Amino acid sequence: MMKLLANKRCLIVGAAPLEDMGWLKALADRHDFCIGADGGCRHLLRAGRSPDLAIGDFDSGTVPSGVPVYTYPVEKDDTDAMLAVKWALEQGYRSFTLAGMVGGRLDHTVAALQTLYYLFCHGASGTLQAPDQWGTFLLGGGSLELPRQEGCTLSVFAYSEQVRGLTLQGVQYPLEQGELTNTFPLGVSNHFAAPTARISLAEGALLILVCQEY
Amino acid sequence: MMKLLANKRCLIVGAAPLEDMGWLKALADRHDFCIGADGGCRHLLRAGRSPDLAIGDFDSGTVPSGVPVYTYPVEKDDTDAMLAVKWALEQGYRSFTLAGMVGGRLDHTVAALQTLYYLFCHGASGTLQAPDQWGTFLLGGGSLELPRQEGCTLSVFAYSEQVRGLTLQGVQYPLEQGELTNTFPLGVSNHFAAPTARISLAEGALLILVCQEY
Repeated sequence: MMKLLANKRCLIVGAAPLEDMGWLKALADRHDFCIGADGGCRHLLRAGRSPDLAIGDFDSGTVPSGVPVYTYPVEKDDTDAMLAVKWALEQGYRSFTLAGMVGGRLDHTVAALQTLYYLFCHGASGTLQAPDQWGTFLLGGGSLELPRQEGCTLSVFAYSEQVRGLTLQGVQYPLEQGELTNTFPLGVSNHFAAPTARISLAEGALLILVCQEY
Repeated sequence: MMKLLANKRCLIVGAAPLEDMGWLKALADRHDFCIGADGGCRHLLRAGRSPDLAIGDFDSGTVPSGVPVYTYPVEKDDTDAMLAVKWALEQGYRSFTLAGMVGGRLDHTVAALQTLYYLFCHGASGTLQAPDQWGTFLLGGGSLELPRQEGCTLSVFAYSEQVRGLTLQGVQYPLEQGELTNTFPLGVSNHFAAPTARISLAEGALLILVCQEY
């Protein structure tokens, strides 16, 4: 069971402002299991995709009907998204997408980044998705290839206090075995300069963001 | 000169989406020196406050007229906001407000947090402000008192990989000499439970966010 789910894709949807329901429906269709984290259930239902599971304290909305629900007390140590992440990790999921978690309040955005990082620190991986931007992490020893995305910037940030041995290829401002700290946004708003950008990292945790320019 | 400016307040305005010009005007009026970082000049001019200095590469807008301007080449290692921060630190400013830097793209938001943290790592302090939310940092050995802000949540996040000896008083979920890591948003969306919340920290860097609930 655990092994089986490790190959399946789990989508967790939060309650941040989200208008493009066509985007969310298409995203949900690419996933095997969709969890609505509290108010995120509403987004999924509006998109025409019933959540496979609703999870949270439902302090900010009514419990959806006709959907399996795990409720938690309001006074808990986890956010709704973290409850969903922990539940799915326990089931055996290792590949995640987090949606409906950025674009609103800054505290929710920072929490979303920490939740995404939690996945990478627990043997899983994932992306944070919004209609006009997405993010992921790269840990030391890893590398990542990204196909060029038209009209988008590619930013890298030290998420750990320092990253070392950072190489960026196929971008406007390439880097070879460089260092970054989390005190200085040197890697913001780079551009794709080849069909594929390649990022590799020796040490630390790198936050990678691809954002539509406007 | 250096000593003199250390007591003055410097506002740096970026180009992130910002609608409430009354808010920006009132904010600018509480500062001694206002820098428009590239597109942020437009915000200040719209708010009826001419920047004391315009700084940036002006790749995303025309150079404002009638305002002292420092231009930089587009291909540079610093963001426009970082150029402004470095310039102001060199002049001797030590108290900063960053506005017009969150609420838009995620890469700009993360860059704004790193820029704010840069200030704290260089002997200065500051806040990141938006009409409905604001943030600051607290470094190990420090403490901070915050008056209750109605309708707002108070969130704390480990910005360094770990923070130790974190004490939260006057809040709904108090903490005594606790620890947080940057992999787990345990401190998100706390609430004021007294006229004053008090935060103290032994080790690490703590990101503090106060956000209007909606």
